[in-house]
Amino acid sequence: MIKVGIVGGTGYTGVELLRLLAQHPEVEVAAITSRSEAGVRVSDMYSNLRDHYPKLAFSQPDPQSLGKCDAVFFATPHGVAHALAAELLAQGTRVIDLSADFRLRDAKVWEEWYGQPHGAPELLEQAVYGLPEMHRKRIRQAHLVAVPGCYPTAVQLGLLPLLEAGLIEAEQIIADCKSGVTGAGRGAKVPSLLAEASESMKAYGAAGHRHLPEIRQGLGDAAGRPVELTFVPHLTPMIRGIHATLYGRLTGEPGDLQALFEQRYAAEPFIDVMPVGSHPETRSVKGANMCRLALHRPGNGDTVVVLSVIDNLVKGASGQAIQNLNLMFGLPENAGLAAPALMP
Amino acid sequence: MIKVGIVGGTGYTGVELLRLLAQHPEVEVAAITSRSEAGVRVSDMYSNLRDHYPKLAFSQPDPQSLGKCDAVFFATPHGVAHALAAELLAQGTRVIDLSADFRLRDAKVWEEWYGQPHGAPELLEQAVYGLPEMHRKRIRQAHLVAVPGCYPTAVQLGLLPLLEAGLIEAEQIIADCKSGVTGAGRGAKVPSLLAEASESMKAYGAAGHRHLPEIRQGLGDAAGRPVELTFVPHLTPMIRGIHATLYGRLTGEPGDLQALFEQRYAAEPFIDVMPVGSHPETRSVKGANMCRLALHRPGNGDTVVVLSVIDNLVKGASGQAIQNLNLMFGLPENAGLAAPALMP
Amino acid sequence: MIKVGIVGGTGYTGVELLRLLAQHPEVEVAAITSRSEAGVRVSDMYSNLRDHYPKLAFSQPDPQSLGKCDAVFFATPHGVAHALAAELLAQGTRVIDLSADFRLRDAKVWEEWYGQPHGAPELLEQAVYGLPEMHRKRIRQAHLVAVPGCYPTAVQLGLLPLLEAGLIEAEQIIADCKSGVTGAGRGAKVPSLLAEASESMKAYGAAGHRHLPEIRQGLGDAAGRPVELTFVPHLTPMIRGIHATLYGRLTGEPGDLQALFEQRYAAEPFIDVMPVGSHPETRSVKGANMCRLALHRPGNGDTVVVLSVIDNLVKGASGQAIQNLNLMFGLPENAGLAAPALMP
Amino acid sequence: MIKVGIVGGTGYTGVELLRLLAQHPEVEVAAITSRSEAGVRVSDMYSNLRDHYPKLAFSQPDPQSLGKCDAVFFATPHGVAHALAAELLAQGTRVIDLSADFRLRDAKVWEEWYGQPHGAPELLEQAVYGLPEMHRKRIRQAHLVAVPGCYPTAVQLGLLPLLEAGLIEAEQIIADCKSGVTGAGRGAKVPSLLAEASESMKAYGAAGHRHLPEIRQGLGDAAGRPVELTFVPHLTPMIRGIHATLYGRLTGEPGDLQALFEQRYAAEPFIDVMPVGSHPETRSVKGANMCRLALHRPGNGDTVVVLSVIDNLVKGASGQAIQNLNLMFGLPENAGLAAPALMP
Repeated sequence: MIKVGIVGGTGYTGVELLRLLAQHPEVEVAAITSRSEAGVRVSDMYSNLRDHYPKLAFSQPDPQSLGKCDAVFFATPHGVAHALAAELLAQGTRVIDLSADFRLRDAKVWEEWYGQPHGAPELLEQAVYGLPEMHRKRIRQAHLVAVPGCYPTAVQLGLLPLLEAGLIEAEQIIADCKSGVTGAGRGAKVPSLLAEASESMKAYGAAGHRHLPEIRQGLGDAAGRPVELTFVPHLTPMIRGIHATLYGRLTGEPGDLQALFEQRYAAEPFIDVMPVGSHPETRSVKGANMCRLALHRPGNGDTVVVLSVIDNLVKGASGQAIQNLNLMFGLPENAGLAAPALMP
Repeated sequence: MIKVGIVGGTGYTGVELLRLLAQHPEVEVAAITSRSEAGVRVSDMYSNLRDHYPKLAFSQPDPQSLGKCDAVFFATPHGVAHALAAELLAQGTRVIDLSADFRLRDAKVWEEWYGQPHGAPELLEQAVYGLPEMHRKRIRQAHLVAVPGCYPTAVQLGLLPLLEAGLIEAEQIIADCKSGVTGAGRGAKVPSLLAEASESMKAYGAAGHRHLPEIRQGLGDAAGRPVELTFVPHLTPMIRGIHATLYGRLTGEPGDLQALFEQRYAAEPFIDVMPVGSHPETRSVKGANMCRLALHRPGNGDTVVVLSVIDNLVKGASGQAIQNLNLMFGLPENAGLAAPALMP
Repeated sequence: MIKVGIVGGTGYTGVELLRLLAQHPEVEVAAITSRSEAGVRVSDMYSNLRDHYPKLAFSQPDPQSLGKCDAVFFATPHGVAHALAAELLAQGTRVIDLSADFRLRDAKVWEEWYGQPHGAPELLEQAVYGLPEMHRKRIRQAHLVAVPGCYPTAVQLGLLPLLEAGLIEAEQIIADCKSGVTGAGRGAKVPSLLAEASESMKAYGAAGHRHLPEIRQGLGDAAGRPVELTFVPHLTPMIRGIHATLYGRLTGEPGDLQALFEQRYAAEPFIDVMPVGSHPETRSVKGANMCRLALHRPGNGDTVVVLSVIDNLVKGASGQAIQNLNLMFGLPENAGLAAPALMP
Repeated sequence: MIKVGIVGGTGYTGVELLRLLAQHPEVEVAAITSRSEAGVRVSDMYSNLRDHYPKLAFSQPDPQSLGKCDAVFFATPHGVAHALAAELLAQGTRVIDLSADFRLRDAKVWEEWYGQPHGAPELLEQAVYGLPEMHRKRIRQAHLVAVPGCYPTAVQLGLLPLLEAGLIEAEQIIADCKSGVTGAGRGAKVPSLLAEASESMKAYGAAGHRHLPEIRQGLGDAAGRPVELTFVPHLTPMIRGIHATLYGRLTGEPGDLQALFEQRYAAEPFIDVMPVGSHPETRSVKGANMCRLALHRPGNGDTVVVLSVIDNLVKGASGQAIQNLNLMFGLPENAGLAAPALMP
């Protein structure tokens, strides 16, 4: 059994790691930390876990005892993994960071968007961006993985085949994204109240969102040159799910786009290229580590529309983190990740 | 008091007319028709109206008695107004059609998208497109008004100032629209069940939606030349509301866009250009005849983003219909339409 | 025009007062106070009010300037009205308190349930319990009105006819109540997040809720003797609405219960006794100052079931407060309160 | 591997069987039938199953080929299992019926509530009521199991310990139950539309619901004598979940109720007696085969309140059906049923 620790386990990605790992045949959760809730039993905070972790309690984060784990997940606000990763890596522990700390290769860009100094620039070189569909080989060897953000996952998976094949203009991409409210975290904020967020839809961060540089970096890698992207996220009145609607300008007659996508993702266990004419629903991936894609070319014109859905807490966070763990430890890639989505 | 009739009153736009007209100081509902529910009291179907229409009952649609009304609203599936409008107009009754029957000036285009012969092409010339922000003068004189569709209202109001001023490329417009489920009507269909549509987001009609030609026609009028539009509607898990996210490519340095919008809509009672940096919420117009707009130009780049929200049943249908009625009969434009949105 | 002030206007009952008063023909909002938001415009906090109160801003609560109002509403946490009421009353201003400060006649009981000393026991004698269906005459003369709580309104209106007629046992009443989440207020609390409260149902306060003594007092008045009540509130995943399901044991053959209710409430403008066999929906009163009731006697047995629905923010708070204002100032009782519920 | 068939697989309990069985280590779905959808692939109807049943298609129900299964689930409207069960049993196939066909021991009572002749009274003697917490031994031997209804499961599990111990009056039980909308099935009915059922709460069937005689039968067994029950179900705006709030009159000083429940259910894998003072949330069992219970005795008075939550589609239907299968075939009782609830 692989022993894992979870740092910062009180948020939604933390509890989602616990939910998924409860079904993982090869993993044992040895520790879960929280400064604010130290001493509280996990099952007192998350009653769905009463039967699965009857005794596990939050503890103070302690690098030494965390260092006894084979791997440690960071489900923390940004900055925390910066501070602790080096010490854990030095003890031979693999680090799987769900925060943004190691997603951007350029520390300057990070500092610009996060408004504080980068706490561990010396680790950036070894950090691997944990999108298996792009970096599976490097993930297998990685000791430090930066799990992609939720929006970046949905957007990149929807656009990679087009950009790799050079079929769309790299300067005019539009990503109109809709997210459930768990994307805003478990913090007690008025705009996230049911009475405020329910029965309503709104955009936010239209002027610039922190996931933008991450998306740009990934798409630029795929395109082989810088991309220009307009990214507008929206808050949707549902708990889970991201729906990315992606618009690209075709550079010429593109050939069979459906075949392109099917071939690009033929071997991917967690990408489902749906039949022509489909409209994937976010509920079809609720609780599941899956990205469903569908392609449209309205009026057979210049614009290609890609619809991409994921569960922001699973393929967009904790599920993808476990997928990375499986790769890093040579386990079947779908270990603990095989359950169907909960629908209805 | 102006006597009005409502044809096809069992759907959501019908009951919304009743709700709004209950507060209208100058209007009396003389008749409401429904073939399927004739004899049923309105208050037995819509318990919110028990106190306001205790005796009003659905009747069989009868052109003669409808012809005694000063105005008749059609809240019907397409084709019905085609069949009845001429007879009513001949009796001097004004017709305000909430269906798509008279929205497209070109009967051929109508037939293409609606898959049946146009039933009243001879009336097209006198039909006025009921978007007061574009056609107020003509509406004042009109006897036959085609109330715009919900998506077309949100999209046109968001783009008119830009196209009129020639500030965006007419060939690359994207309208990513999100609608609450009342947009799908009151029909008993599995995909509209709470158990299916709740906790999920999906696109639909990505390959082509019937509102597309209507939007193209209106935007083309504003631009003074044909426009190319990619329009993708999405189903959102909420009852009411449309959020249109509109993307245009600037043709050059545009000047002060905020001022442009504020001036264009300065005299409009039902357009609210919000302050720079705003993100309008659909709930801020829930139940109200209002369109709120906000402008963004991410990274000061080539793309302008307009956020436009309406209540699909009010400014997107029944409220706008009453706004047209007010104009046609010389009443204050906001008669019966002054109540604030229900929030929270 | 009657000049009113609102103390503590940032919460849901405050904004609901503004929404309703915007349609009131005889009332002008002269001041709205908030310690935390002083200086902020109301329309910046509640975008639905941008068109109705473009300039009104929150101010520091100041007894002197509030004293220039004809009436002041308190939409505050408990304790605030205790501190300010006397000073306002001394200036001739009427006080309409939406908090619990003056609902219980016995200061001792208040102190027991609210865990602090009663701040104005000397005012209790003149305070009138603002349930018009019980105390209309006294309200007309009152200078200080305690607006009933939301649960107490729904429960009392459902049970008064039975208790006044002595038809049910006073010792075995059960009130199983379900409330939307606005009942928990606008505070930023984790359990009220959409991600926590949506798609779930739970009871709370089963061991004892602060509305219990208020309900007991009112029902005791109606029965003419003490009542025993089991009251279990539940949190329901919706914004507004209370559904009270009330169970009483019949003391004997009760006669025509439907007729009893219809007669008791025949003259009431805001009580709707629905036909035999009805099941009122909370949405049928969404945004409206209305209580709908229906009666059932399953299997013609010993138990009578009363279904009672209100909007917790309207008939359960701000609407009822305005109903009281109308009575106190000799206005038509339904002034500003005539709009139908928003449905769907 | 145990080969199972599912008759009537298009509804919510059918797809839920497929979702759960996809994770069952010992079961293979050999056939799924549907008259209306024969030929359609399961994955085309339920996109969450695309990865798990890529080829399984609905077929016409055929007793002969179904008879080759080790067990057949009926997820059908009432009457269907009546018609087919005998033929399957004759072939040695076990029958697990999720419909109401074999739940009532008395065919007369069945006919009264279902309004049609009982189609297989000769099988009633061998039918076992599939509530493992009451009939585990008999289920192990059974060939024909009647899976309890959703409400009856939540209500019986909450009241069994009290009635078995004779601690509450059997004549005055109240069950106030709240259900998500999947309880109404997947039929296209207007009241189940999101636009109708969302943002609202209502009771239904207050005069008498078909689950009443089933609950009476089970509680009567536990009490050893007939019980009188008032049962009022409510429709709640959520997809899944039942919350039963149960009220009993104590016959005397009851001793330690918490200990009573904990002992009664100590060995039960799917009953969670929560700590004193708890309020179980339906979301804590979303997607899980679990019943969580909590006890309250308000004011230390005569009334005991039991809060009981289940997922209506899992412990209230398909999960419990699989639990029965596991018992009938000597498998671990929790095979395929171990995953935690999806929360948030």
